[in-house]
Amino acid sequence: MTGNLKDRPTDTAPKGWVKILGLGPGDESMVTAQVQEVIAEATDVVGYIPYVKRIPERPGLTLHATDNRVEVERATHALEMAAQGKRVAVVSSGDPGVFAMASAVFEALELADQPSWLELDIQVLPGITAMLAASARIGAPMGHDFAAINLSDNLKPWSLIEKRLRLAGEAGFAMGFYNPRSKSRPHQFARALEILREACGGETLISFARDVSKPGETITTVTLNEATEEMADMRTVVIVGNKDTRRIGPHVYTPRYARDEG
Amino acid sequence: MTGNLKDRPTDTAPKGWVKILGLGPGDESMVTAQVQEVIAEATDVVGYIPYVKRIPERPGLTLHATDNRVEVERATHALEMAAQGKRVAVVSSGDPGVFAMASAVFEALELADQPSWLELDIQVLPGITAMLAASARIGAPMGHDFAAINLSDNLKPWSLIEKRLRLAGEAGFAMGFYNPRSKSRPHQFARALEILREACGGETLISFARDVSKPGETITTVTLNEATEEMADMRTVVIVGNKDTRRIGPHVYTPRYARDEG
Repeated sequence: MTGNLKDRPTDTAPKGWVKILGLGPGDESMVTAQVQEVIAEATDVVGYIPYVKRIPERPGLTLHATDNRVEVERATHALEMAAQGKRVAVVSSGDPGVFAMASAVFEALELADQPSWLELDIQVLPGITAMLAASARIGAPMGHDFAAINLSDNLKPWSLIEKRLRLAGEAGFAMGFYNPRSKSRPHQFARALEILREACGGETLISFARDVSKPGETITTVTLNEATEEMADMRTVVIVGNKDTRRIGPHVYTPRYARDEG
Repeated sequence: MTGNLKDRPTDTAPKGWVKILGLGPGDESMVTAQVQEVIAEATDVVGYIPYVKRIPERPGLTLHATDNRVEVERATHALEMAAQGKRVAVVSSGDPGVFAMASAVFEALELADQPSWLELDIQVLPGITAMLAASARIGAPMGHDFAAINLSDNLKPWSLIEKRLRLAGEAGFAMGFYNPRSKSRPHQFARALEILREACGGETLISFARDVSKPGETITTVTLNEATEEMADMRTVVIVGNKDTRRIGPHVYTPRYARDEG
């Protein structure tokens, strides 16, 4: 084939990219088609070990599974590979924009301070986030205004978390909590429950959704007065309703309306 | 084939159900496989006209498209049909649990006060909600704790919305707003911007995402000081960052960390 010089691409280097993907809560039928397509096109997949395990191996695809708490190193590695022309899928469970890898990639981009990296094709593809997958299994507890709070104090002071719980209660938000409890900070969740009882009232409903959409899923709803810290672990998403949240048959829902100022 | 009486189902009436589905923000490649499967099994689809238009016609499927603001009537109709043995898909855009049809179905179930309906198979299947689809296109503005607020005062007093904006600002939440502005209440969004400037500071970034994932999508990010009410309409999702939200290249993101008490 012939062609004049003008029509030829001026840069024939392979076009790398970073696409930050949400794999949803666990059930493969909850992954979007656009995410599946990107996985099929990728040369490299990076992510936390259990999420990378969800990606089927195939020729031409290199899997880079890393441990938790190395998000910025992992993100930097993804950017480096994209700059070399690789097509890199960064995988998160749930939605990458909700307490997951999307912010870590942009933090890494800022820290790297490499002007050429700002030209890289970086895209975020959403997924079903754990809080909304849990909400769907419970009924519709987030059916009114709500707040999403990461209860881990790895990256922010615990005092700020306490302040947010109080203000969210005062605002009458339903709430979804990620990372409610871990072995390294077993008593903070008990303290969170104490604050919630004060801020929302002890009769407010709280749901514990463990392993949502996975084998062994459990959903438990009790009042804040009945809730104990053992009901949550790191595989649990916790959802607290507002004062109008109620049961109807086996379902729990928050009405769309609010009759007064809360 | 033979079988003894014990093995036969005791009830051979057709098993009806109501499944409340999230179609995502608009792009068909953002619909999950489980939602596609339910649409393929349904005998009836109910929903607001533009969402029902997204469902392909086929023999054996009846489409029931209704106008906006009749959510509880539509939900009651869905429950009635399921009680008659029909397989009813209630369709919402985005996620049905976020300012959409899931709460309306449970409200209708409660209002109907029909004990047999409490036995109906009612399930909610999540979808990609507009706020998180918009967040992905912007970068990662919801990468830290956040609140989701419906700015319509159809179902709650405007004074409660003002209170929630102030408290969410005080908490340092990023915020996502649904239904920011309509013709029937053109000046409330200007008032919301005023409150946000006071509560969050005028240099805080605000993004307007219109027709996310659809043809003609536009994304605009400015500071709260630069924002005007005309930037939003009912097809816009509005996202406000926190004080750490920043630009890096063409992206806007909120860091995962918070260095102090906000």
